[in-house]
Amino acid sequence: MNFKKRIATFLMISWLLIPAMSLAGEHPSLIMTKAGVEKIRAELGTVPLFDATLALVKAEVDAEIALGIDTPVPKDFSGGYTHQRHKQNFLVMQKAGALFQILEDEKYAHYVRDMLFQYEAMYKNLPVHPQTRSYARGKLFWQNLNDSNWLVYTSQAYDCIYDWLSEEERRKLEDNLFRPFADYISVESPQFFNRVHNHSTWGNAAVGLIGLVMGDDELVERALYGLQDDGLEVGAKDNDGGFIKVEGQKVGFLANIDEPFSPDGYYTEGPYYQRYAMYPFLIFALGLNNVKPEAEIFKHKNGVLLKGVDALLNLSDADGEFFPLNDGQKGMSYYSRELVTAVDIAYHVGGQDPRLLSIAEEQGQVLLDDAGFSVAAAIRDGKAEPFEKRSINLSDGPDGKQGGVAILRYGDEDLTLVYKYAAQGLSHGHYDKLSFSLFEKGDEVLQDYGLARFVNIEQKGGGNYLKENTTWAKQTIAHNTITQNETSHFEGKYEVGSEHHSELQFYDDSNSDVQVVSAIEKSAYPGTLMRRTMAVIKNQSFEKPFVLDIFKLKSNKKNQYDLPFYFMGQVLQVNFEYDVPALLRALGKENGYQHLYVEGKGKPATNDTKFSWMGGNRFYTLTSATNTSDELYFTRIGANDPEFNLRRDAALMIRRKDSKGTVFASVVEAHGSYSPVSEFAVNSKSNIATLNVIYDDDNYTAVAIEDLQGDKSVFIVSNANTSATQQHQVEIETRKHEWTGPFHYFTMEQ
Amino acid sequence: MNFKKRIATFLMISWLLIPAMSLAGEHPSLIMTKAGVEKIRAELGTVPLFDATLALVKAEVDAEIALGIDTPVPKDFSGGYTHQRHKQNFLVMQKAGALFQILEDEKYAHYVRDMLFQYEAMYKNLPVHPQTRSYARGKLFWQNLNDSNWLVYTSQAYDCIYDWLSEEERRKLEDNLFRPFADYISVESPQFFNRVHNHSTWGNAAVGLIGLVMGDDELVERALYGLQDDGLEVGAKDNDGGFIKVEGQKVGFLANIDEPFSPDGYYTEGPYYQRYAMYPFLIFALGLNNVKPEAEIFKHKNGVLLKGVDALLNLSDADGEFFPLNDGQKGMSYYSRELVTAVDIAYHVGGQDPRLLSIAEEQGQVLLDDAGFSVAAAIRDGKAEPFEKRSINLSDGPDGKQGGVAILRYGDEDLTLVYKYAAQGLSHGHYDKLSFSLFEKGDEVLQDYGLARFVNIEQKGGGNYLKENTTWAKQTIAHNTITQNETSHFEGKYEVGSEHHSELQFYDDSNSDVQVVSAIEKSAYPGTLMRRTMAVIKNQSFEKPFVLDIFKLKSNKKNQYDLPFYFMGQVLQVNFEYDVPALLRALGKENGYQHLYVEGKGKPATNDTKFSWMGGNRFYTLTSATNTSDELYFTRIGANDPEFNLRRDAALMIRRKDSKGTVFASVVEAHGSYSPVSEFAVNSKSNIATLNVIYDDDNYTAVAIEDLQGDKSVFIVSNANTSATQQHQVEIETRKHEWTGPFHYFTMEQ
Repeated sequence: MNFKKRIATFLMISWLLIPAMSLAGEHPSLIMTKAGVEKIRAELGTVPLFDATLALVKAEVDAEIALGIDTPVPKDFSGGYTHQRHKQNFLVMQKAGALFQILEDEKYAHYVRDMLFQYEAMYKNLPVHPQTRSYARGKLFWQNLNDSNWLVYTSQAYDCIYDWLSEEERRKLEDNLFRPFADYISVESPQFFNRVHNHSTWGNAAVGLIGLVMGDDELVERALYGLQDDGLEVGAKDNDGGFIKVEGQKVGFLANIDEPFSPDGYYTEGPYYQRYAMYPFLIFALGLNNVKPEAEIFKHKNGVLLKGVDALLNLSDADGEFFPLNDGQKGMSYYSRELVTAVDIAYHVGGQDPRLLSIAEEQGQVLLDDAGFSVAAAIRDGKAEPFEKRSINLSDGPDGKQGGVAILRYGDEDLTLVYKYAAQGLSHGHYDKLSFSLFEKGDEVLQDYGLARFVNIEQKGGGNYLKENTTWAKQTIAHNTITQNETSHFEGKYEVGSEHHSELQFYDDSNSDVQVVSAIEKSAYPGTLMRRTMAVIKNQSFEKPFVLDIFKLKSNKKNQYDLPFYFMGQVLQVNFEYDVPALLRALGKENGYQHLYVEGKGKPATNDTKFSWMGGNRFYTLTSATNTSDELYFTRIGANDPEFNLRRDAALMIRRKDSKGTVFASVVEAHGSYSPVSEFAVNSKSNIATLNVIYDDDNYTAVAIEDLQGDKSVFIVSNANTSATQQHQVEIETRKHEWTGPFHYFTMEQ
Repeated sequence: MNFKKRIATFLMISWLLIPAMSLAGEHPSLIMTKAGVEKIRAELGTVPLFDATLALVKAEVDAEIALGIDTPVPKDFSGGYTHQRHKQNFLVMQKAGALFQILEDEKYAHYVRDMLFQYEAMYKNLPVHPQTRSYARGKLFWQNLNDSNWLVYTSQAYDCIYDWLSEEERRKLEDNLFRPFADYISVESPQFFNRVHNHSTWGNAAVGLIGLVMGDDELVERALYGLQDDGLEVGAKDNDGGFIKVEGQKVGFLANIDEPFSPDGYYTEGPYYQRYAMYPFLIFALGLNNVKPEAEIFKHKNGVLLKGVDALLNLSDADGEFFPLNDGQKGMSYYSRELVTAVDIAYHVGGQDPRLLSIAEEQGQVLLDDAGFSVAAAIRDGKAEPFEKRSINLSDGPDGKQGGVAILRYGDEDLTLVYKYAAQGLSHGHYDKLSFSLFEKGDEVLQDYGLARFVNIEQKGGGNYLKENTTWAKQTIAHNTITQNETSHFEGKYEVGSEHHSELQFYDDSNSDVQVVSAIEKSAYPGTLMRRTMAVIKNQSFEKPFVLDIFKLKSNKKNQYDLPFYFMGQVLQVNFEYDVPALLRALGKENGYQHLYVEGKGKPATNDTKFSWMGGNRFYTLTSATNTSDELYFTRIGANDPEFNLRRDAALMIRRKDSKGTVFASVVEAHGSYSPVSEFAVNSKSNIATLNVIYDDDNYTAVAIEDLQGDKSVFIVSNANTSATQQHQVEIETRKHEWTGPFHYFTMEQ
């Protein structure tokens, strides 16, 4: 069969006008357009990043073609051969389709066609996948989620060879493969398709994309608005514990934009899943934008899809790795294929932000499509500008009123505080109200554990979530926040947690030397009000910035409060006595406590408990205002973990018993460094002499920090009125202080 | 005072003739020569690496000059202020001296002079250092070792400003500071000066260098040959447990070359201390070479000092970090200042090996002296060639007959096996006969623990050796070798260990796909013969090379044998059942066992025990031929470690009880990789189906490996005659095998 060249006259129309035109009926039209392809072909060899990516992808696809096509009978979980092979297949088909368009070499079209027909032959009689763990089993994969991945990628491949196939071939593929496939993951799997969840986003996008290619408006409508009558009962749950149907909730692709994205572009499941969902969001949106520009999808909800890309880039550390909030696998970064997609599309359709080009340069690759070409050409033309991450406050919730995540950065990400005061985050959320994590450059100083899963590593529970994700990673004690009475927030009940969220009190990054965020949580423990104010402060007496943490509790009864600090590194020194047990036993029996060994237990020796550690050849010190009745624990993760699913990381935990109202006030200093090559230890000690809560009532809490030079600084936070314009006046230790706004930080005269 | 320019006519003499000339009485003459300085000044600004180093050093010294001179009253251990300040002082003085010579700016001479006179004023009445831990206390520092460091560096500074000072100034410095200083660390500290030990090397060099500068031949003789009558008693020990006086042993600088260096340039204390000692060895040798070329010091013992530099570079991983054999701090590398010195001097006086230039390029700096200039100029002239590390066998012992260390490398350091069958290694030696460690690129796969010390970090025991260095790091169970009956080699007795060494059986790296080393140890456990043969094999059925480990034991009584594998990473999968205890308790009471928690205990389920782990995003599998009566332990370091001095690293340990003769045969496969960004797990499983010891007697041991493709390979090692020319013949499982040489590896026909 010959390749039919059809260069229509509209190809002469200016590049800039393309996005506004409907390409309905044209192929390709999803991620590539005829006009775009012409431009790519014309400039091949002159666009270094595109050319380099093309060479790499060509080598990869050529190797796969040489290997031959395999579409094994589905059998395995993630990580197993049949799973990996089918996954590899759709990734390679998508690339082969693009290569066919760009290089006009029919071997790529043949490859896609032949593989599609193997799937066509197999799919007709394919039963549901034999693995039964999923609430929505797929056919090629153990869950419909992965089947949807397949269709999202395969739709793009089909689009690329659509015109090249005969009508008969298309009819056969559409009747026997694509339409049944789309129906299976939608009408036959309403519990999967009709939700607000990243799973459904994939399902919606898959159905919508194949609908766009086939010109099937019914499928596109189904994708955008979901199934009208799904027959689902309210309250049913999936195998991750997430709700399937929520009373009155809209469904479909648009609802999946409206609900989980805040107006700031924060996705309620957290950055790891935002990264995962961005691909179907943006690919389907791009196709829709090409074929049905009248939908103005990129303007939906004030352009939240593009804001989401910016938010996601900001949710990464200095190495580009995403903060592992909620269920997040550490190491996932903006170097992932999903973020290459996101950055390229955001640049292409989102106003050519030149800062995105520097990220694309770091990624070292672009999409082999119109968007990727735009990016590569702009980089070639020297348009890239640095993407400087600054402090940012991202609201959570569809209307931005369900808490959020604040990221306070000092300098060039020299110190980055991630403070989470968000909503539950759907089924991948953790019970971690008012928790935080801390980074110096790209290194974790105080960690968020992330998920308990080895994604796609078959030996570890099929590569799926491990039970320790529920028993440990989601529990409150696994986080750097308060656990009351050894019970997780909302008693670890998803139904309850999903009804509540923390509330921002104030956020102020206007002074880079004193950046502050404060939030409260009223519902995690009924009857207890938690208020945590965190500041990143650069005081000239200190070498590096430090974090001030004021965690105030007020309850209607006496409780036990546990506040752990999951430090990364090795203990250097403490200023308190402690006993080390001869036998290591678990700290508790449930709610995550069963996974913590007690390596040491002590009591504060003074009012300032000090703990220094070394991590990544840098020094850190926690100084905390403590009572002599507090208990101090060295804990280590790993108890009741028979399969070694958990990392053996450590924490220092402060326990305060029999307290109604109390304040945990702490400073975490980063200081100095060590070189194992020069063997010089620089500034290895804390600069803090004393830290005291010098005032605390319903209106104000004040903390005084005296450094080794004898200088004293005071931080006063308002607990009652946190408006930026409110004037305050309070007398502390016989001195009167006046200021405007929710907090006041000043250095005392000696 | 004006700078006296004296350009003698001999400066016109060709550069190349300089090394053969005596510079006695000339200054500078230690590391710089008048001719060298002239050349440097003439070419300044045209030698990029030298110019860059000069700019850096100038900035550093200028900053120190701006800070002002401080020579505090000595008080602290390593890591404390007075220690660090005096250390910084001598480092900066040495640099300031060089800057004065190169830049002819008298401010540097003033700085050195002023600091020297502050020391002169202080030293006269300075008591012995108040810290009492050392067997040889210094005055400026807690041990004479550091005082000697001071004099080694300060001698160079004095040499640089010698001519610039008045005779009166020189007299005052020499009478009140240098001569008393040299006498204190030698005649007044014979227990320090008159040993074969890196301490004495520093002391000898210090006395020798100041003797060369002052033109005092008596001091130079004292340095070279030690004290004639030291009054020491044979058998006394230092605070590290090392012998001070050994019957009949020669002392002094030359003896310190003769004794600890093997003819191959391996230094018996191990690479960490070799690195440390190389500085005084080479600096004094260079000065001696300049002032007394007739001594032909660089030809001493067949040029062993220069061979030592080559050996040391080969004792590093792909990142340039030294293998942490014996007491070695991890992270120390050939980027250290000592190796900059070693590489530059070795290039300058050792025949201009162009491979050294590529190391110097990586180091990114050179010495500010004649040697550094040679290197920088050669790099500028494009002479650098790659330093490709290959497999190497380094003998130990003064005559090269006390065992050794073999390093088997595959590819571009893709897999590196470090096999230690050496002598005790003086007081920094570990009880680790026939132990090994394994690296993939620069990452540890199976670790050698290294030392238990945080060098110069004051919070950790003053930065000195921690008691866990003795109770854990030196013990046999801390290493990847056999511990018999829970007792360390030689019962952990230094006196006994020092009398013995392992013996090489054969070493063969002639075939890069089958590299083998074999050694025996007869004395670690009297009555037990240990024979370990290790091979790095690349079989075409395997993705990466693997390590074959055949550890054969033969004893005159029944023993318990423990063989741990200290894997780096997280457990993925095992093929045996095990119990995890509710309480973690120590594995034993002494000899290092008290520091190991038992995290799991099981029994082999089959004859092939398999254990997979993931480390550094790569996969590894240990397959070991086991008996059903063996016990398998998951252990973790950290028990009885009240100050958290030890890392919480893990091991899988095989225990075999009630055995006289037995073979532990294992394969360690490196395979595949994981990316947390793409989330693809590639080749995450072992390729071995079965591993069996198919033959074992006094003459031969044979191991068969069957892979998943059904291919079988066999490795036969000769236990009786290991000559390279010996012909062998043995019948195994009805098949007759014939070959020549100590081992035979072949793939069976199916």
